[in-house]
Amino acid sequence: MRVAPPDNHLARHARLRAELSAASLDTLLVTSLPNIAYLTGLFASTAALIVGSNGLHLIVDGRYLGSAQLRQRDLPGMQIVLVPPAGSFEETVAGELLAASNGRAGFEADHLTVRQHQDLAGRLARSGATTHLEGTQGLVERLRAVKDDWELATLKDAATRLSDAAKCIIPKALAGMAEREVAGIIEAQLRRVGFDKPAFDTIVAAGPNSAVPHYRAGGRRLSEGDLVVMDFGGMLDGYAVDLTRTITVGRPRERERQLLEQVAAAQAAAFAAIGIGKAATAVDAAARRALEGAGLGDAFSHGTGHGLGLEIHERPRVGRWRADLADEALQAGMVFTLEPGAYLAGWGGARIEDDVVVTSGGAEWLTDVPRLL
Amino acid sequence: MRVAPPDNHLARHARLRAELSAASLDTLLVTSLPNIAYLTGLFASTAALIVGSNGLHLIVDGRYLGSAQLRQRDLPGMQIVLVPPAGSFEETVAGELLAASNGRAGFEADHLTVRQHQDLAGRLARSGATTHLEGTQGLVERLRAVKDDWELATLKDAATRLSDAAKCIIPKALAGMAEREVAGIIEAQLRRVGFDKPAFDTIVAAGPNSAVPHYRAGGRRLSEGDLVVMDFGGMLDGYAVDLTRTITVGRPRERERQLLEQVAAAQAAAFAAIGIGKAATAVDAAARRALEGAGLGDAFSHGTGHGLGLEIHERPRVGRWRADLADEALQAGMVFTLEPGAYLAGWGGARIEDDVVVTSGGAEWLTDVPRLL
Repeated sequence: MRVAPPDNHLARHARLRAELSAASLDTLLVTSLPNIAYLTGLFASTAALIVGSNGLHLIVDGRYLGSAQLRQRDLPGMQIVLVPPAGSFEETVAGELLAASNGRAGFEADHLTVRQHQDLAGRLARSGATTHLEGTQGLVERLRAVKDDWELATLKDAATRLSDAAKCIIPKALAGMAEREVAGIIEAQLRRVGFDKPAFDTIVAAGPNSAVPHYRAGGRRLSEGDLVVMDFGGMLDGYAVDLTRTITVGRPRERERQLLEQVAAAQAAAFAAIGIGKAATAVDAAARRALEGAGLGDAFSHGTGHGLGLEIHERPRVGRWRADLADEALQAGMVFTLEPGAYLAGWGGARIEDDVVVTSGGAEWLTDVPRLL
Repeated sequence: MRVAPPDNHLARHARLRAELSAASLDTLLVTSLPNIAYLTGLFASTAALIVGSNGLHLIVDGRYLGSAQLRQRDLPGMQIVLVPPAGSFEETVAGELLAASNGRAGFEADHLTVRQHQDLAGRLARSGATTHLEGTQGLVERLRAVKDDWELATLKDAATRLSDAAKCIIPKALAGMAEREVAGIIEAQLRRVGFDKPAFDTIVAAGPNSAVPHYRAGGRRLSEGDLVVMDFGGMLDGYAVDLTRTITVGRPRERERQLLEQVAAAQAAAFAAIGIGKAATAVDAAARRALEGAGLGDAFSHGTGHGLGLEIHERPRVGRWRADLADEALQAGMVFTLEPGAYLAGWGGARIEDDVVVTSGGAEWLTDVPRLL
């Protein structure tokens, strides 16, 4: 697995330290695993990271010691703290936080559970420390939303591989095959083009199942005339890409052909709405207006897209404007999906999804497969 | 996908209500998705459940309305609450909780984040309600640790399929194949025997990689003499099973053969330590003693096993005794893995894993594949 060069990591640390300083925090306890991967290049199932003014402290247990040491070669400013074999992870984290902070220590309020917070606060209080825990939201996630050069190169490489896989897979979905069987072919092809694993459970939804946006892949056999939604993605070097095509088995009838064209037009409208400084919700609104104009407003029951990166769903949220959720201004280097769909219960549905990057000229497609197949 | 019969769900509700009553709670807000699946049979990516004295309230958005209505046919005492299309999930949950509770409402402290808790507490306070939020731990998880008849039948069926897949796969791992390629064969076979999906990222670790317990599957080609750890599992009707075998490519040399026998002996010792009322940590201790006796104590760097069910890792924890973690007394109907291993850095490692159920007679194996291959 390739990881970003040391300079990229150091630049991420500098940007994060500027955020901490703006928030008057002397330290940040990072417990989100994708955030830890972003800052250190270590992908672990258990880890914590303390970012202080004088360095990074990466806390791991014995399973990840070797991998952490490899990362330390790239990032000599990062200290590794090993949880003792019979010791407690929570106790080690609390001890390191006490050593690193004597003022306001931030934690990630979206990632620490109530119990973990209570445990940590209890340990700090019992130690008599002056460290004060302060909830933060999205400090690292906001940095992650704008990809650096290495991340963009990785996502472009991944999107090209995903497009190649799609071109090879889609003609293989034939009448008589079970949805699950097609999903198996897709996942084998994802590995063949170099992905480490699928980015999520592959969706193959045929006939009436295509009208259920959260359907996965079941036992239905593809039948002549079926709409078939195929939604799949891959992880490459820790980064996720995502693509959907909807086909008809055999020649499309008029109604199916029209639906596919309407969804493709909504995607084109969303693409045209992208630009630096524009609102992410405006991109959603453009797709929604196009489908409403086609009488499919109610049939479009989800958001237009989601950010891609170390997680398959991350910032920016490209959905409906909502009073209780922050809108985001698009920035160059943001990468997200455009995936409008229309679902007619009991009959069928269609979704077309591609990945884009925001650029000074507006946007560029990362995936490259004909929209209508 | 099959789900447990209505009577099983009603019995789960009754057991949970007894727990709530013992904890003097009038209501429990369930936000863990596996816990919601256990209580309702609905598998959703976004949902909340309120268990009150006068019924269940299942909160879903439009994507899961159809699936929730299907579940309601089985469970007429369960009301469905739909999040309005442009509304907020959090607001809907808070409103329902206010309506259901006028006293002590429990929430799951291991699953609610600090931010979610703060948001919910803020909404309750602003409404002027008398509802008081009370953190709980493991109320539903403790019920889930003891499987009911339907769950045992499902896990036995799944374990039989996994054993069949293993017998067919393992002879296919041949010199010259890349680890990733073997992982692809395994995952295709999991689908072929009827699993909905792999239960986790398949591990195929060859040669020195076999000494890294958290390794996945990479580019190394299997070479004559390599130890190869293959760890894989499947999800069937929402339930996870898990199996590991370690083989040698070609005929095993003396050192590899001995290591495999020592690990198999540790697994047998763990199995013999299982019994109703015995401590879960005593099972771990038995495996650990066996490996220590063989001079491999330091080489066994993880716990002996973990519970299986709606999650691939759940209660009971079959690991080292630790002062800061509760020990669990084994009960009939608990299902877990036994997976001792020994890892010698730079050289290689071995792990052997099977699934067992605690019975009145001690324990029974659920998976059935020769341990030494």
